Amino acid sequence: MNAPARTLQEDRAAATRARILEVAEALFRSMGYQKTAVADIARELGMSPANVYRFFASKSAINEAITDRLLGGITAELEALADGPGSAGERLRAMLRLLHARHLALFFDQKRMHDMVSAAMSEHWGVIAVFISRIEAAMARVVADGVARGEFSPRDPDLTARLLKQGTLCWTHPALISESLAKRVQDEAQLAEELEQMLGLLIQGLKADS
Amino acid sequence: MNAPARTLQEDRAAATRARILEVAEALFRSMGYQKTAVADIARELGMSPANVYRFFASKSAINEAITDRLLGGITAELEALADGPGSAGERLRAMLRLLHARHLALFFDQKRMHDMVSAAMSEHWGVIAVFISRIEAAMARVVADGVARGEFSPRDPDLTARLLKQGTLCWTHPALISESLAKRVQDEAQLAEELEQMLGLLIQGLKADS
Repeated sequence: MNAPARTLQEDRAAATRARILEVAEALFRSMGYQKTAVADIARELGMSPANVYRFFASKSAINEAITDRLLGGITAELEALADGPGSAGERLRAMLRLLHARHLALFFDQKRMHDMVSAAMSEHWGVIAVFISRIEAAMARVVADGVARGEFSPRDPDLTARLLKQGTLCWTHPALISESLAKRVQDEAQLAEELEQMLGLLIQGLKADS
Repeated sequence: MNAPARTLQEDRAAATRARILEVAEALFRSMGYQKTAVADIARELGMSPANVYRFFASKSAINEAITDRLLGGITAELEALADGPGSAGERLRAMLRLLHARHLALFFDQKRMHDMVSAAMSEHWGVIAVFISRIEAAMARVVADGVARGEFSPRDPDLTARLLKQGTLCWTHPALISESLAKRVQDEAQLAEELEQMLGLLIQGLKADS
């Protein structure tokens, strides 16, 4: 009897965790993650704060779980592009365009979530390290494939993936995107056009013999 | 008699401005620019604050003038490299290495000045726009020269200069350098090595036919 009972309990715990995150995310989207207290989340759920803390050790743990859910969706899209059809150059372009577009959408349409992701990045939350390493791993797979096909000149896939990510940070890092747009030096169309030019330069570099 | 008298007055005003900046910079370096009040600068000079304000309309004007002096030295070095000997590729590499090294030195050896330059960038002080446009103009000259020599494939010099600057921002932007080093993901030697790899990729891209 022990094992199935534990499973039922586990299911219940998972369901409660999911409900906590759902309510927390709704509050984060309306009030912002910083102004939302664990007490607000508990009240909305008809729970005691102590009960919420049984599922998440701290407010930070809730922040991380919600950021992880948000970024997990982007990671899945990127991995599908990496492992999909097309030349290696086309797949890398598509991945970096997607990363740009998703961060831009976050900035414009989900300002409060954007603030949370920006904080996650500048404060080095653990979920960000996971997000970045998965993106780099997916890009490294595409680079390795491009080298194997003879589309790119021979080069280290991991290092190259990191260079591609760092070299396009202006278009994919939430803080840098908001800086560019806040300065009003550039509008969205200009940012996108400049990213295309940058991708062209980088992909040309990958193809050239060193 | 009028004209020479005015010139003498102008000389005196310039000398006073220079003394104010010298004393202000010394205080900025020891206390930080934010904690230094105009009253502190005036006291050090044996002047009244009102007298300091005759030469600089605000504390911000003093901040800008000191930042301008600091960055002006870097700009002069970059322009000398741009207009100096060597292939276009070598000159671009040397310029971006210098920009990296100067910002790194600022971060490690002149922490308080680094904080001021970081603030200048994130708050979009006017001197930063001038600094960036002079750097981009110098790089554009080198790109144009590289195209004219047939070293690079034909491309727009201004756009290309901007791409080179944006693509290496991780290694030259004070806030991003401090982020990389603060994370302890990278030490100085790794940062420098990665910049070399990035420069290699970008210069290869410039040489390749599109």
